[in-house]
Amino acid sequence: MRKHTFATLIALSLAFAAQAGEPAKPAAHAAHDALDYEHQEQWQAAHDKSQSPIDIVTSSAVAAADNEPRALEFQHTRGGIDKVEDNGHAVQVDTHATQATIRGRHFTLAQFHFHAQSEHTLDGKHFPLEGHFVFKAQDGRLAVVGVMYEQGKANAVAQEVLDDLKPRKNKAKPAQQEIDIEGLLPKSRGYFHYLGSLTTPPLTENVEWYVLPAPVTMSKKQIDGFLSHYRRNNRNIQPLNGRPLIRYEG
Amino acid sequence: MRKHTFATLIALSLAFAAQAGEPAKPAAHAAHDALDYEHQEQWQAAHDKSQSPIDIVTSSAVAAADNEPRALEFQHTRGGIDKVEDNGHAVQVDTHATQATIRGRHFTLAQFHFHAQSEHTLDGKHFPLEGHFVFKAQDGRLAVVGVMYEQGKANAVAQEVLDDLKPRKNKAKPAQQEIDIEGLLPKSRGYFHYLGSLTTPPLTENVEWYVLPAPVTMSKKQIDGFLSHYRRNNRNIQPLNGRPLIRYEG
Repeated sequence: MRKHTFATLIALSLAFAAQAGEPAKPAAHAAHDALDYEHQEQWQAAHDKSQSPIDIVTSSAVAAADNEPRALEFQHTRGGIDKVEDNGHAVQVDTHATQATIRGRHFTLAQFHFHAQSEHTLDGKHFPLEGHFVFKAQDGRLAVVGVMYEQGKANAVAQEVLDDLKPRKNKAKPAQQEIDIEGLLPKSRGYFHYLGSLTTPPLTENVEWYVLPAPVTMSKKQIDGFLSHYRRNNRNIQPLNGRPLIRYEG
Repeated sequence: MRKHTFATLIALSLAFAAQAGEPAKPAAHAAHDALDYEHQEQWQAAHDKSQSPIDIVTSSAVAAADNEPRALEFQHTRGGIDKVEDNGHAVQVDTHATQATIRGRHFTLAQFHFHAQSEHTLDGKHFPLEGHFVFKAQDGRLAVVGVMYEQGKANAVAQEVLDDLKPRKNKAKPAQQEIDIEGLLPKSRGYFHYLGSLTTPPLTENVEWYVLPAPVTMSKKQIDGFLSHYRRNNRNIQPLNGRPLIRYEG
């Protein structure tokens, strides 16, 4: 961006605030407005229209078209761990080697982390925890698989994550070297799909979301273990702004 | 966005200008900075990092991974025309029925239009015209196929578009009802792929780009026909900002 005068900055910020605050309204003659290619630096971009998380209103979801590739296939769910840490805003596991084919394209798992309470809601309902499995494709495309956790039977893989977060008193017992995310995923692979954003800054809007509504259980003690790190790290629900919400049966 | 004080607006605009003007620098302790979930409205989004068009530096493109779906398959290239018009910033053909399978996913052509000179450059070189074929998927994903036009043999399909733009003197001769975009596409379907944006406001950053480097010809008279509408409607080249640029052989 070129250097602007103080007045221009104020004008820009007013425009920015107006865009973020209300749905885009086409200008009176927008379709036939000429664009000024000699002063492109004055063009206004529309931002913050496609943010995450959202409330998934299940009755408003449309069925995936028959000709759409649908599958969410996880290959090599067991992968090496690079780091398990409390990064200051989430409990996160950096990993690699876990591969997935998501609607026909190839993705690699980069990390997964947990939010309390869930960021997405299903018909307004929060779950105590939501896991975000962040996948990246060769072209930089991000796809995040969201998993809901509810109170029930203890979860062995969640316990591995919690154990790795504890200060290591007994150096003889090494940290986990690998993790199998299979145990953190529901058996039913049906999902809700929409185009959204990262839920923490920089809130980048180039993210394919796959939210699996079938919850996975953790024990009360395990959920409390995550809550002892973060009692609240869920972003507020964002407006859908007319984005398609698509339902894929498992 | 909530209502802000005047001071906040200025602070916002300064942050916005700084983000747009230079590459993102992680804050000193970014990885371990806690996020304030009680004041989410103050979170800053990073914008304008993934804009189009770009200069395609062919030597910097990486080959597509073997496990990637690559094909750009056009089905039903002949489709009905809804409108051919000069919309004030481009010559545009609104159409439907043309279907494509792009890297395994299903897209429908919404419109195509022309820029003079080309918006993308190949190793710094402009072509006199670039066609943008704008496809949309069920989930709202946009994919734009960019085609370069150079001076050479006359192009029958380009002539149909030019003829439809003329004031209709002889009402007995109806406008085209259909168009076959096959004649506007190169035979070689190799392409350069990256993630970018629309090139006119709202400059939305959720666009998959597929730029076909093999040019298609139009006669000098046809190119001049497009230039009589727009001598310049190409956006300036935008920085790649580290985005992957991927080469798919035809």
